Amino acid sequence: MDTFPITFLPDNTVIQAEAGQTIQEVADKGKIHINASCGGEGVCGRCIVELREGTVQATPGLYLTEDDFAKGIRLACRAKVEGPATIFIPIDSRADASFFKKASQAEEELTVETPDPMVRQSCLILDPPSQDDNRSDLDRVNAALAAMELYDNDIDLSAMRQMPSTLRESDFRVTASIFYELPLQKPENPPYGRIVAFTPSTGNDDYYGLAVDVGTTTVFIRLVNLATGEVMPGVGDLNGQISYGEDVISRIVFAGKKDGLKRLQNRVIDTINRLLERYEDTYPGYREKTFLIVASGNTTMAHLLVGLDPKNIRLSPYVPPASTWPSIRASYLGMNVAPHTVLKVFPSVSSYVGGDIVSGVLAAGLYKKPELTLFIDVGTNGEIVIGNQDWMTCAACSAGPAFEGGGVRCGMRAAPGAIESFLYEKETGKHYLGVIGGVSPSGVCGSGLINVVAELFRAGVLNKQGKLVEGSSEFVRPGEDGLEYLLSPAESNSVEHDIALTEIDIENLIRAKGAMYSGYQTLLESVGLEMGDLERVIIAGGFGRSLNIENAITIGLLPFLPVDKFSYIGNSSLTGSTLAALSGTIWREAFSIKEKMTNFELSDTPGYMDRYVASQFIPHTDGRLFGL
Amino acid sequence: MDTFPITFLPDNTVIQAEAGQTIQEVADKGKIHINASCGGEGVCGRCIVELREGTVQATPGLYLTEDDFAKGIRLACRAKVEGPATIFIPIDSRADASFFKKASQAEEELTVETPDPMVRQSCLILDPPSQDDNRSDLDRVNAALAAMELYDNDIDLSAMRQMPSTLRESDFRVTASIFYELPLQKPENPPYGRIVAFTPSTGNDDYYGLAVDVGTTTVFIRLVNLATGEVMPGVGDLNGQISYGEDVISRIVFAGKKDGLKRLQNRVIDTINRLLERYEDTYPGYREKTFLIVASGNTTMAHLLVGLDPKNIRLSPYVPPASTWPSIRASYLGMNVAPHTVLKVFPSVSSYVGGDIVSGVLAAGLYKKPELTLFIDVGTNGEIVIGNQDWMTCAACSAGPAFEGGGVRCGMRAAPGAIESFLYEKETGKHYLGVIGGVSPSGVCGSGLINVVAELFRAGVLNKQGKLVEGSSEFVRPGEDGLEYLLSPAESNSVEHDIALTEIDIENLIRAKGAMYSGYQTLLESVGLEMGDLERVIIAGGFGRSLNIENAITIGLLPFLPVDKFSYIGNSSLTGSTLAALSGTIWREAFSIKEKMTNFELSDTPGYMDRYVASQFIPHTDGRLFGL
Repeated sequence: MDTFPITFLPDNTVIQAEAGQTIQEVADKGKIHINASCGGEGVCGRCIVELREGTVQATPGLYLTEDDFAKGIRLACRAKVEGPATIFIPIDSRADASFFKKASQAEEELTVETPDPMVRQSCLILDPPSQDDNRSDLDRVNAALAAMELYDNDIDLSAMRQMPSTLRESDFRVTASIFYELPLQKPENPPYGRIVAFTPSTGNDDYYGLAVDVGTTTVFIRLVNLATGEVMPGVGDLNGQISYGEDVISRIVFAGKKDGLKRLQNRVIDTINRLLERYEDTYPGYREKTFLIVASGNTTMAHLLVGLDPKNIRLSPYVPPASTWPSIRASYLGMNVAPHTVLKVFPSVSSYVGGDIVSGVLAAGLYKKPELTLFIDVGTNGEIVIGNQDWMTCAACSAGPAFEGGGVRCGMRAAPGAIESFLYEKETGKHYLGVIGGVSPSGVCGSGLINVVAELFRAGVLNKQGKLVEGSSEFVRPGEDGLEYLLSPAESNSVEHDIALTEIDIENLIRAKGAMYSGYQTLLESVGLEMGDLERVIIAGGFGRSLNIENAITIGLLPFLPVDKFSYIGNSSLTGSTLAALSGTIWREAFSIKEKMTNFELSDTPGYMDRYVASQFIPHTDGRLFGL
Repeated sequence: MDTFPITFLPDNTVIQAEAGQTIQEVADKGKIHINASCGGEGVCGRCIVELREGTVQATPGLYLTEDDFAKGIRLACRAKVEGPATIFIPIDSRADASFFKKASQAEEELTVETPDPMVRQSCLILDPPSQDDNRSDLDRVNAALAAMELYDNDIDLSAMRQMPSTLRESDFRVTASIFYELPLQKPENPPYGRIVAFTPSTGNDDYYGLAVDVGTTTVFIRLVNLATGEVMPGVGDLNGQISYGEDVISRIVFAGKKDGLKRLQNRVIDTINRLLERYEDTYPGYREKTFLIVASGNTTMAHLLVGLDPKNIRLSPYVPPASTWPSIRASYLGMNVAPHTVLKVFPSVSSYVGGDIVSGVLAAGLYKKPELTLFIDVGTNGEIVIGNQDWMTCAACSAGPAFEGGGVRCGMRAAPGAIESFLYEKETGKHYLGVIGGVSPSGVCGSGLINVVAELFRAGVLNKQGKLVEGSSEFVRPGEDGLEYLLSPAESNSVEHDIALTEIDIENLIRAKGAMYSGYQTLLESVGLEMGDLERVIIAGGFGRSLNIENAITIGLLPFLPVDKFSYIGNSSLTGSTLAALSGTIWREAFSIKEKMTNFELSDTPGYMDRYVASQFIPHTDGRLFGL
């Protein structure tokens, strides 16, 4: 087969490629990173490259207009080799790479060796009834279970109704699906079993569970095979509640209105139901074989999912109605699943350190390791956990919406059009923008903001106080709110105005990062430790994916530690609920995590406010904390 | 106060009475028995007396036409002393008396010393939340329960929803109502608790349970106070299913028709709901405070109550779907009670020895006493239990409908108009009829049939083979089906035909009593015992109330034993469920009774048919069994 040289810029690396290979595949072969969030499906638009010389086989399409195509823009995952070519990889297609070089994906297990889920299937081979043995069907079943040392199993009425015909149709070889309620306060007590279904024993005993991560912004679900431990790819969507407010406080307020609670509950259930549909093509009818759903979400999301009024969450002393949840039939809440499907919801620690964090800590494993670890989930409410196998402290920081692009004049969510990467060439005074989706910019997202501020600070365009230095760059100009930095002029944008960074935007970011940093300090000092004692930092949540570690340290959001101590764990809430769906043992660990964690209400903690004030610089008042 | 002599005939006893006392009260004072099923409410019509001399203050009314009144007929419970009087007590007002003189009411406890019901209330005095203690409401509740060594309580969603407001309205002093699922196979395991409701702790902590006896013909319920152990008077009504067939077989057949199961279930639930209404006057709002319903019924009734298809009950090898039942929310089945009310249904032994018998044995206490006891419940399906504290055997006899007035030409249920008592004066050849309600006769009921046959046998009008002796009485005459005995000519009746006993009727009765008797024999012989070893005979069920023991022995229905060995226990099924509602310990005993009982399918048991054939005489082929 013919091979052709493909040259990748700006690294100037040449890779021999076969005709028909995609540019993405060729780059992979040469260990050259090109973003591909969607895994090469041509739908995320993150693998934009520029064809500088030669030809590739490609057509315009999604994320690629005729106009862009004419300029040589291609999607690396869709462009195929047909001769020699020179390919330039723009910065926005390398955004993840800049991160991955620094914070490696945490190598957490996404599956368990031997599943031991809370729902188990027992195959019962029963003696058919006769004149000498005319025990009732249920007595016969219970005796078979007792022979397996499974005593005192309760039973659903629906399972009872299935029982006589299922027994007879299957020649008295049936699979009993039993949900086990695991005692948590007294784990030495036996689990409390409940037969939820009878099915003929066919030999194909696959059965399923679902992990659900109910985020304030997005909802992800993932199907798992409880028999084999196999984990399917997750699917996600925006939480339908978002039209009632972007953050938990606005949701709580809405829940207090007439029918508000019910509407919010319906919205998130609708979102889950839409996601459930998406597995039907690949696993038709899987819902009949799905017995367990394990959901994790912050404390407010858990209340809204279950339909419990969360109002006390935002009223001092911030006492949520519940931080543990009973077993609930998912269909009772409106989920489109079989009546036998049991929903378990992760326990939370406090009003603002929720089940998503417990699930994340479970996934990150810090509760069972000796290293002193900082676990953070950055968002409007940034949650922090510090600890190890012996102890854990946690807190929520009111960071404000800056990390999610809120409270920033040209801020936006991390979506196509958001400026995410930023390089400033001190020598030439030029800057380069990386935009999600490779389209014209329409705003700047939270991680972009961090990158911009860090680059400008390093270049001396921004000072320690967070003020732009007049005359330091051609892009610094007076604006409505003092000086501002012009990121992209209106004519280059898909919006009709300039995209600029104001000093107020920078102040908001400093407040946000300072809230986080002083949170780490407070938790560490509460146990007599300091930042340098941290052996590991785990960054969780969607925000972490595109976070540039060096830049985050530069602005003082992350502690000043060697980059190899940082790792990124992705959607740890979904990972934790996946593991808990696969294993009752792991599910139980969630409760020891909850019990082990000491929660700090930072605003009530002595010293927090002083530390917060001291953090309102770049990177910090106390430069020694950052090796300065 | 003036007193007047009241003379009672036929005993010729004179009692001094005060003006305004009822004749019933005066008779009671003199220990003279007059029937009063309704307890003196004037509604049962069983206390009919005849005013022979003097006057009483009375008016016509229910059960008492102007015509009867003119003849001197009075209701003893409604007629008041206003001067000297002579009162004749007819035989039909002494029917119960003739029984009570022989078989005393069993002195079973209808209440327990200290209630320990399956639902308990725990008063929780909680520390209100504060900045230093902002545990969730549920964590706070669970910690208080754990301090009482009540661990791992599950909770209803509805209770969770009540919790935040109830805690705050009650100043954090609440009563948690917790239902305990008691392990039965492994009773050493801890019970599994579930919080079903929170209420403010008011100091008035009365809460209720209901006992329900679901009979094929009648349904009785009884309210009990679970806090004090107080037992309220029961109320009863015909089972609404009766329009779909009188016996269990016809109900099972109907359940197999389209919507049949649902309709039968609805009917019995409607009946229970009507009965529930009847406590509202005396205990307004009691249903909000009712947490437990314990129901007992035969195996078919239990299936229809819960809504499980009973069809296999009547198909060989007679395997019922279930003989134990999970906890069910009564409101889920349609009962008009609060959602927190849990229904427990008595376990059954086999398809035809049901939860009513287990409940009856529980009430009769024979399972914990050393005496060898025969427990019988006479009906279309007569159930028999023989045993003591060490062992028990049981069986159901297909007696046929004769005991319930079925399969008998002029048979009817024991209701007003039924001939129940019968005296035959051999000397004069005259006979005297006692009719329920003191009205003109319209038929003969089961116990009446026994009394008629016994009297005619003793008088020689009927021979050992069950044939009428021609010429032995002026009432013996040829009929359509051989000879018949004229009980009451058409002109005396409220029906337009003669009421007569045919030889076919007598054959049916002999078959029925023989089925029972050969059942006792079979069970006794299976353990190497004989009739004379019986130390006690307990007769349960409505039929037993009016059963004349001597007559029942005379025809061979009851074993030939001294009359003082017999006792009557009334509605033992309702008594058993009352006790089980009051005590989880007693409820558990129901399961050891079920486990302890060895069930015999008589038709499959060697020797049964021979014994049955031998029993087809009056009293029996083997006269020695009856001291002859």
